[in-house]
Amino acid sequence: MIEQGGFISKDKEIKKREKPLTQAEFKEQLIDVGRLFYHDKHPFHVAMHEGKLSREQIQGWVANRYYYQKSVPIKDAVILSKLPSREFRRDWIQRITDHDGRNEGEGGIEAWLKLGEAVGLSREELLEEDHIVPGVRFSVDAYVNFVQEKTWIEAVASSLTELFSPDLISNRIQVLEDLYPWINHSGLGYFHNRLTQAPRDTNIALKIVMDYCQTPEEQQRAIDALRFKCDVLWAQLDAIEHAFPH
Amino acid sequence: MIEQGGFISKDKEIKKREKPLTQAEFKEQLIDVGRLFYHDKHPFHVAMHEGKLSREQIQGWVANRYYYQKSVPIKDAVILSKLPSREFRRDWIQRITDHDGRNEGEGGIEAWLKLGEAVGLSREELLEEDHIVPGVRFSVDAYVNFVQEKTWIEAVASSLTELFSPDLISNRIQVLEDLYPWINHSGLGYFHNRLTQAPRDTNIALKIVMDYCQTPEEQQRAIDALRFKCDVLWAQLDAIEHAFPH
Repeated sequence: MIEQGGFISKDKEIKKREKPLTQAEFKEQLIDVGRLFYHDKHPFHVAMHEGKLSREQIQGWVANRYYYQKSVPIKDAVILSKLPSREFRRDWIQRITDHDGRNEGEGGIEAWLKLGEAVGLSREELLEEDHIVPGVRFSVDAYVNFVQEKTWIEAVASSLTELFSPDLISNRIQVLEDLYPWINHSGLGYFHNRLTQAPRDTNIALKIVMDYCQTPEEQQRAIDALRFKCDVLWAQLDAIEHAFPH
Repeated sequence: MIEQGGFISKDKEIKKREKPLTQAEFKEQLIDVGRLFYHDKHPFHVAMHEGKLSREQIQGWVANRYYYQKSVPIKDAVILSKLPSREFRRDWIQRITDHDGRNEGEGGIEAWLKLGEAVGLSREELLEEDHIVPGVRFSVDAYVNFVQEKTWIEAVASSLTELFSPDLISNRIQVLEDLYPWINHSGLGYFHNRLTQAPRDTNIALKIVMDYCQTPEEQQRAIDALRFKCDVLWAQLDAIEHAFPH
């Protein structure tokens, strides 16, 4: 078992493992990473889901998270350039189209700008990136650098946080509608879209990771990559919470 | 004027230019690069278009050029990851879909494999890459490295060889049908598709280069990038001609 809190104690058992995990054990380990380190457990998200965030905190979160949104298709294009076959690229390219849209006014980035408007931020304010705090920028840039520098399979594994996002997002839609009545509900389209996109993407990525990570080392690198991505999401919330304190 | 042949004498006038070229002059310079250095003038292509290539030479060309075809979407994904906006990505992503196809059995790489069959090479032979000579591999890899390492606008400019390809390709279709009756004409779909794809892609890329290269230095870097790409294509034919001599 992976442990949480205080100094990180790496799981020596995994590191020393000589035989690969079974498919079921491997999947369980991946899910364990999310169970312990996914950002739904971050105090800022917990407070959000308890309806405790101020208007300014919600705005700060949306404005900062825009930097992540705008970087996602860049990250996915880097992965696309590293994938080993056109069959894989055919699946992965959908992620980029989802975020960029096929035409003006479409796509996830556009939907995030609309979310900004729904919480009272102008489109220009988001695009100018003035509200983005350094810790968010560093975390997101670290993610793009990670997929650039690591192997393609580690880059794919890092995307597996989407295993955990549908639960968080479906809760969030409810929370934002119920506990933040001042938010214009018509601006929540981003989250509605992700409810169908994320499971589709994750099924593809999970199958690739399961198929290609066969040795103990490959499996561990995939687990580490997923943990890294959890850290990227977590560190963004740390920085946002510091900039927009309770 | 750029000169051809012997030692390369760099055009000192361009290098020293203090004022930017007009749009018309800049476009003329780009076209000049193609007029002098595009691979339609390579002895191997000249011989092909005179009907002088043997079956083995045609096969060698198709088998080797496969390595270029399979690398094009990788190159385009690298460019995609560097483009500065989702508006640009929306246009550029089409190139990747054109090459990879949306579904099994579609796309430019698949069409090239069919061309292989039309000239008497099995799909497996192409996929195994045993016929690919080092010079082709080095040239194509240099192209992928170039777009990785250079600025996004130089990467875009390097794609402008497509300015010159429709003329070459429409001639080639006629040539292959008329002068190489042993080739199965049903396998020429790749070239037919490129007749509409290349002008569309080039119009987009040319507009970007014209808009973004405003200083003499930026214009010169675009011209140099296009020249580099001509060299990539030319060097492939050098290597193919040496491996499959007349």
